[in-house]
Amino acid sequence: MDSRRIRLIIEYDGTNYAGWQRQQNAIGVQQRVEDALRKLAGEKELFIVGASRTDAGVHALCQNAHFDTQCRIPAEKIAFALNTMLPDDIRCIASMEVPADFHARFSTVGKEYIYKIHNSRHASAVYRNLTCHVSYPLDIDKMRAEAALAIGTHDFAAFAAAGSVVKDTVRTIHSIEIEKTAAEIEIHVCGNGFLYNMVRIIAGTLIAVGANKLESGAISRALNSLSRLDLSITAPACGLYLATVFYPERFS
Amino acid sequence: MDSRRIRLIIEYDGTNYAGWQRQQNAIGVQQRVEDALRKLAGEKELFIVGASRTDAGVHALCQNAHFDTQCRIPAEKIAFALNTMLPDDIRCIASMEVPADFHARFSTVGKEYIYKIHNSRHASAVYRNLTCHVSYPLDIDKMRAEAALAIGTHDFAAFAAAGSVVKDTVRTIHSIEIEKTAAEIEIHVCGNGFLYNMVRIIAGTLIAVGANKLESGAISRALNSLSRLDLSITAPACGLYLATVFYPERFS
Repeated sequence: MDSRRIRLIIEYDGTNYAGWQRQQNAIGVQQRVEDALRKLAGEKELFIVGASRTDAGVHALCQNAHFDTQCRIPAEKIAFALNTMLPDDIRCIASMEVPADFHARFSTVGKEYIYKIHNSRHASAVYRNLTCHVSYPLDIDKMRAEAALAIGTHDFAAFAAAGSVVKDTVRTIHSIEIEKTAAEIEIHVCGNGFLYNMVRIIAGTLIAVGANKLESGAISRALNSLSRLDLSITAPACGLYLATVFYPERFS
Repeated sequence: MDSRRIRLIIEYDGTNYAGWQRQQNAIGVQQRVEDALRKLAGEKELFIVGASRTDAGVHALCQNAHFDTQCRIPAEKIAFALNTMLPDDIRCIASMEVPADFHARFSTVGKEYIYKIHNSRHASAVYRNLTCHVSYPLDIDKMRAEAALAIGTHDFAAFAAAGSVVKDTVRTIHSIEIEKTAAEIEIHVCGNGFLYNMVRIIAGTLIAVGANKLESGAISRALNSLSRLDLSITAPACGLYLATVFYPERFS
């Protein structure tokens, strides 16, 4: 029987998961989706590939994934069927058939992440798992000026978590926009790809500069030195959202 | 020893509570705050009065409350001390000393509620407990026109849940504003006071009119007939936020 390739767009609240990836001793979002799909399709050997392996506690507004199946359910109905089987902190928000050469991970041409900060003396009760709480005042103009230093194509070796095994650490950041509404600050980062923890290290550094705890220019210094020590701490996972995954136009 | 009156501003995620009020067989937010304050102040007979008795599942961005105490902790430090003792879905975001005639409930001159809708084919994973999911398209212009019918001073008897015991059902709605950003719709309702479930009945009715499931003009018909049957269902609690409590200027 002919096999079809199906693309899923998945939103999740990462609070209760050990990240996207299926793993041995904890529940990843991938496992929940794969288990539901296997039941739905009646295929034990069904595997899904995600665009981004988000970390524990990181959220996704538009994770992308693909899988191959012989099941005959109309592609766009799969989202509805899946949602009856998934826990309510994971929702499939779209499903569609795609060409056999679409690959959720390798076909990507860019991604947008959003880092959300609750900047107020006290933490937020309502958004406690959905934002990073920063209690000291942040200078948004300083943060914006610092963010501008990261724009462009650079060797971002300093911006990767220790233990990262990627060899090519050159990436392009297209834009970093910082929006502020009352106590909420959002950092929108668009790029062609990101190293492990790169967005959280950028966010942590922008927060440190905005709080006058780190001298402006840290990003330029780190791009020159390639040293992680020139940057601030990795900001907590709960503030990070995988917001958009970009593909070549023929897949849209 | 002299007693002081302290005002608290409290934010909470209502998802895991049986509403604001202390009760026999379930946990209300009031109980959590009162228990923490009693420990903090070392006073067994400490009672707090809240501005609004929000229902189970309803959230508050700015609930107000007051209590009298003989404890000597500086008023503005109470918020910080409380937050070390409260669960993280309840945060005291401010504490201050107020005149003895300030009353969190009886001094109010108005309130603002926000009703949040996630208007998309599939529910939201991230905001599942923080919005009401409406899967069918909503006509915002129709909703705005319907909302305008409620503005002013009217007998809102039709807009109260069955079992409501209030005798005077005349209230003034100052404004209803409806904002839309992508899939999120927010209904902001300001008034001098609200009957039991009134905002959720207004929200349910605006949703029904916006979805073409109820003929426009329902609010006018209900204001004339005083009949609950002229309106739509009570919208779910999870979309509702107590957003602001207004007091006379001398208390601000």
